[in-house]
Order: sequence, then C-alpha cells, then structure tokens
Amino acid sequence: MRNLKVNGERLWASLMELARIGATAKGGVCRLAASDEDRAARDLFVRWCREAGLQVTVDAVGNIFARREGKNRDLPPVMAGSHLDSQPTGGKFDGAYGVMAALEVVRSLNDHGYESEAPIEIVAWTNEEGSRFSPAMMGSGVFTGVFDLAWVKERPDNLTGARLGAELKRIGYAGTAPSAGRKVAAYFEAHIEQGPILEEAGVPIGAVSGAKGQRWYEVTVTGEEAHAGPTPMGKRKDALVGAARMIERVNRIGHAHAPDASATVGFVQVSPNSRNTIPGRVFFAVDFRHPEDPVLSAMDRELKAECEEAAAESGGLAVEVKEFWYFPPTPFDPRLVGSVRRATEALGYPYRDIVSGAGHDAVYMAKAAPTAMIFVPCKDGISHNEREDAKPVDLAAGCAVLLEAVLDAAEAEKPSGQSGG
Amino acid sequence: MRNLKVNGERLWASLMELARIGATAKGGVCRLAASDEDRAARDLFVRWCREAGLQVTVDAVGNIFARREGKNRDLPPVMAGSHLDSQPTGGKFDGAYGVMAALEVVRSLNDHGYESEAPIEIVAWTNEEGSRFSPAMMGSGVFTGVFDLAWVKERPDNLTGARLGAELKRIGYAGTAPSAGRKVAAYFEAHIEQGPILEEAGVPIGAVSGAKGQRWYEVTVTGEEAHAGPTPMGKRKDALVGAARMIERVNRIGHAHAPDASATVGFVQVSPNSRNTIPGRVFFAVDFRHPEDPVLSAMDRELKAECEEAAAESGGLAVEVKEFWYFPPTPFDPRLVGSVRRATEALGYPYRDIVSGAGHDAVYMAKAAPTAMIFVPCKDGISHNEREDAKPVDLAAGCAVLLEAVLDAAEAEKPSGQSGG
Repeated sequence: MRNLKVNGERLWASLMELARIGATAKGGVCRLAASDEDRAARDLFVRWCREAGLQVTVDAVGNIFARREGKNRDLPPVMAGSHLDSQPTGGKFDGAYGVMAALEVVRSLNDHGYESEAPIEIVAWTNEEGSRFSPAMMGSGVFTGVFDLAWVKERPDNLTGARLGAELKRIGYAGTAPSAGRKVAAYFEAHIEQGPILEEAGVPIGAVSGAKGQRWYEVTVTGEEAHAGPTPMGKRKDALVGAARMIERVNRIGHAHAPDASATVGFVQVSPNSRNTIPGRVFFAVDFRHPEDPVLSAMDRELKAECEEAAAESGGLAVEVKEFWYFPPTPFDPRLVGSVRRATEALGYPYRDIVSGAGHDAVYMAKAAPTAMIFVPCKDGISHNEREDAKPVDLAAGCAVLLEAVLDAAEAEKPSGQSGG
Repeated sequence: MRNLKVNGERLWASLMELARIGATAKGGVCRLAASDEDRAARDLFVRWCREAGLQVTVDAVGNIFARREGKNRDLPPVMAGSHLDSQPTGGKFDGAYGVMAALEVVRSLNDHGYESEAPIEIVAWTNEEGSRFSPAMMGSGVFTGVFDLAWVKERPDNLTGARLGAELKRIGYAGTAPSAGRKVAAYFEAHIEQGPILEEAGVPIGAVSGAKGQRWYEVTVTGEEAHAGPTPMGKRKDALVGAARMIERVNRIGHAHAPDASATVGFVQVSPNSRNTIPGRVFFAVDFRHPEDPVLSAMDRELKAECEEAAAESGGLAVEVKEFWYFPPTPFDPRLVGSVRRATEALGYPYRDIVSGAGHDAVYMAKAAPTAMIFVPCKDGISHNEREDAKPVDLAAGCAVLLEAVLDAAEAEKPSGQSGG
C-alpha cells in the first residue's frame, strides 16, 4: 500500500459535470460517437487533462491519449481508460466512469507528487457503443489491428450516411498520432458491471477474469404474405408465428446453459408489419454469450436445429440462420487480474471474481497487451438505460483499486537490468 | 336471362389501363388515398363515366357517384362499386375490380340501349384501405353515418400529418353532393376473394352471405430493458419472450376455432429494438375474425386469459390487452344474396356460398341499404400484395353476375302501384 488516496468527491463531481453534456430529460445521456455532444465531452476531457499537466495526442481514428511521463520515458506506458460516447438513451457511467477514474488516478498522483517508473496514459477510445456507426469498439479495434483504419473511416452513420472519418474531422478529432503497433505495458479499464451480480453479492469490486465469447446471428424467416381476414388458419405460412416459436426457443437455449449463458433476441423486424396482413417475412437478431467456447458451439448447433424444427412445424416456412459475428471468449492477463485482487484485498474491500458479459474496449486490448478490468456495481444491474446508476462510494473504491493496479504495473516495468535485488 | 352480355375484354383492358396509375416494379400498384396517384385514377374513372354518359357527382368526403338515369328518376338508385385506392404494395384488382365491373355493367347497358326502371349509380368510395389515413372504409363510413364527416376530414396522414380534408381539396375531390342520408335501393360490390377458397373449390363465383365479425386488440407487454450480455437468464424480464409466447397462443386460439376463425398478429413493435438490449416493451396488434358473435366472445376471453398466463410465466411481465375495434358479424340481405345465386345459376357458372373475412365498403353499406357481394377467385388466395392476380375469365363471370343482380334490383324497384300481374 502506497497510502495514495484517491479523491472520491472529485471523481463524482467530474462524472456529474461530464454527464451534463448530452443530458436527457430522464437523467441519462445521449452522446453518440462523433456527434456535437461527443465533441463537447472530448473538449472537456482534454481541458482537464491539460490542467493535470498531461500531454494530449489524438490518433487518426480519434482515440485520445493523455500521457503523464514516467521516470523512464522509454518504457512502454501503462494505459487506463474507456470511452466517452454513449447509447442513444444511455446512462452517466457506462464508459465515462473508466475515463474519469483514470483521470482521478492521475490527479491523485499529482496531488501526492508521485513519480511512476513507466509513463501512464489515459485513453478515451472512439465509438465503443456502435450505436451511430457500426460495428462497436472501433477505436480500440483500429488500435489493436482488428479493423482497418481506412475501412473504419468509411463506416456510415446509420441514419444520415455521414462517414465516421468526415465526422471526426468535423468535430476536430481526426488526429495524427500513430494508430496501431504502439507497445503498451498494461491496460486497465474500470467499468460499471452492467449486470446485477455484484449488487446482489453486496461487494463493491469485481475482479474481471475475462470476457464471455459471443456469437451473433441474423435469422430470416420467410413465409407468405396474405390478407388476415380471408386466409384460413390451416393455409397460412405466417412468418411471425414461426419467429415467435424460434424466439421462445432461443430463450430456452439460454436457460439450458445457465447460469453463465446469455441468449437474447433484441431486434425484430416484421414485414410488411401491417395489422391485417399475415407477415411474410421476419428478420431477427440473436445474441449468444458464454465464457466457454465448447458451450457456445453447442448453443450454435441447438439454435440451428431449433430454428429448422420451428420452421417445419409452422406450415413449412423457410429459415436462414446466418452467423455474422463471432468473438471468442477472452481471458484477461492472470498477472494483472491477480494484481487487481491483491490491491482490493490490501484496501480492505470485499470482492468477487466475475466474467464480463458485455464487450468492452478491454476485450480488443487483450489482443495487444496484458489487460484487466475492474467492475463496480450498478443499481439493479441496469445499463444502456437512462436509469443507469451507481454509488459514489463504489465508484471511489473502484478508482482506488485502479490506482494501485496501475502503479503495480508501472513499477513492474522497470527494465530488467534495474529490477531485482 | 336478359341476354345482355358484358364485354370481358373491355373490362380487362380498363383494369390494365387503371393499373398503370401507381404501377410498381413488381407488378402491383401503390395508389394511396388522396395521393397524386389516387387523383389520376379518379380522373380516369370520371372521364370514362362521362364518356358513358353518366352524371358524376362528388360528396364532401370524396366519394364519386356516376349516375345512369332510370325510367323512373324518383326511385332510389341501385348502386354498385368499390374503391380505387390501394395498399402501399397492393395489387391491381382489390377495389379496382368492383369499380371497373360496375362501369362495365353500365357500358353493357349502353351497348344494348337497355333502360332500367330505377337509376343505377357506380360508386368509388374514398380511402377503403386505411393505409395512409386510418381508419379504413372512411368514405362508406361517412355515407352510412358510421363516421362524422368533420372528424374524418381531420384524420392525419400517418407520415406527414397532412389532413384528409386538405388532401381531398388538393387533388380536386372535395365535393358538395350530400354525404349521408340518401336512400339506396340496393348495393352490390364485386371483389376478388382475397383468400384461397374459391380457387381451391374450382368455382368462379362466391355468393357472399355476409362478413365475419372482427375484434382488434392492441397488446402492450412491459418488462425491463437491460444489457443482453451481463444480465443472467434467471433475472430477466424480457418483454419479447413474453410477447412471443402470446403470439404463439393467438395462433393456437385461431386453430381452436377453425375453419371459420382467423387470428393474426400482423404488427409488432419492439423497444428499444437493439441487438444487444433485452427488450423492455413490446407492442403488438391482434386481429380476430369469425362469422358468429358468441365464438368471437369466446376468443376474446381466451386471449385475455392466455396473455395473462404468458406474462406470469415469463418472469412476471405486465400485460395490457386493449380492444380498440369491434365490428359485429354482418349478414348481407337474403333477397339480394338469393338474386346473386339465381343469376349465377342462370348464367351456368358453378358457385359456392362464402363468408367474407375481410372488411369491405359493403359491410358499412349493409347498415344503410340491402347489400350483397360477389366474389371471384384470386391467384393463390393472395391479396394486399403486388403479386395479387386474377383470371380475365373469372372477372368477366363476376361482372356478368353483377349485371344480372343489379338489373334484378333495379326492376324490383318499380313503385308498388306498377308492380305485379
């Protein structure tokens, strides 16, 4: 223990000031990637970083890096951060907490005049949410080589078609810092859990051992459009009845692999979607998650079999099940996860190990650098919702753990010649 | 038998010429009520009526009446018609056939110089489809006193909010002829069946004995929006899983009352409809139809019980089932239905009795005048679809039956003093 206290009140005040940007009437925020609100949030963050004496750079995909030099400038930095963009009806903490917690770590180091061995960088990744520009986690994806920079810059806004690259330029965040290939000593991301486990367990800290794997599908059910009145029940090819049976079965697959599995249909499009027309076509998306790849594969097989069966039982519908995203389970770095556990114990907080069900920038960063996450509880497990809420005391606890874990990593980066003895 | 042949080729040619207005790439038509396309169709119809020597009037809700005088001008007219508007991706025959068949009846009478006792009027009702302006069957609804004229004129376009009254004025079809209270001796409507029964039975004519009753509902299922990844299956209040179970049960209710019942969910709205968010709210519409009121009432009770049960079984969701339209079963006039049967037999066509599953202007007209309908087969029973199709020979047969039935009614209208031996 270094006896370097973080300032929980300052952290909370910064979160609340940031939440005014894009604030919604129901207490949430709408701060879509590369929007005017995103620009305002970035400007505020950059101002705070400069006030903290940090050197700010922006890369070509708009990721912001704010660097606090270490004793040894040649060491790769320890990074901590998250994202400033939000869902259209998002909350005050998803993403924002990880960036503000990292800022509070640096401010605390400044308060105490503490000089770390390796440099420390705060990062705010571009477009984690993927709401306005798909796919999600673009900034960290480019940084880690998952996505091609040129391709990402051409992604269109899902309403107006404006390109991400042009929008970044418009808001003044198309920078020149190198986007990929930089060596990072360690990456930490503090985040609200976005689920109910920590709150129910009554612990303020989750040591995140990794992220669930994900398989995403697009399912298209095709029947025959017909007039709802004169078409006898026995003659129908009602794509919606078939889809309803499939949605029920997706849910059953999730329950069959509980407690670690999740299985969700969140998006449905019915055609022609007219009250008195039998639907001829239904499109829906399936989201499967599990920490173990063999279970995900079993769920995959079950989905395909159940959809075929439901289609056959529903008047001979056609069904196409297309996997369009696969994301293997990602274990985080055991050394860093261990360091999060040790810091939590040393600070006297109860904690539990947890697996992240959501995608985070940390999942891409785990491809390029030792990575770990710190979760704190959110109220009722609710996130991606204007009601998203978290307690100041938990947020401060997570920040204190982050500070210790960041410094452990920054001190561990002494060149081997200097270490030991 | 009067030996007054209709001209099936002229009827077909008029249908095809009309179908060019609002023609879609897939062979259907898009001719929304009071649109520019509706205006063009009305203009063409009015021109043809004037060329046939008819006197054209338009009432305040845009219904067009084209009158062929009878020997006795004081007798109430026999009316035949339907509508010229279509669904957004509708077919060439729904509505258009009833108007063009009535026009062909009048043209045939002209060919033969036949003078009917009572006047004959062709009618084209405004906004039968209800796609652009809700509710459906507005023109016949105002004519028969179901809807208030002032209220109907204020109905907004479902996209732009433009009012029907203003749109009728814009296209030049806000007229001054009296809208309601006119005495009508008989009303006939020829229409494609919009179902598969006649085609499968291999008969060209359906003598429509009445229309099914309808009960329409709006169901709102409320659960809790949450992130699809981190929320355990056992903790979810997934409104879509509940709605899927309800949709399956609506279908089961329909099958339980087959063959005469129909039960359809055609419209579904999922909130927030995001791939990785558990739906917090689902809104869907239920359409129940049956020729007998007690069965409809049983279906109503079953719907409410099944929705409650499905909500309870799906993690304790809330469900609201709101009936928003009720339309009792409508028997058509036995004398006129008998006259359709007799005409069909006399012409040598096979036929069967049939109950209309769809709403038609005839259903409102049945409130105000003796009414009957004549159905002809449509290909594969498909309607409200750009693939909607019908055979020229069947359309001509229906028109021939219409002519006989119209003349029977027009001759029956001799004042009682003149009738009899």
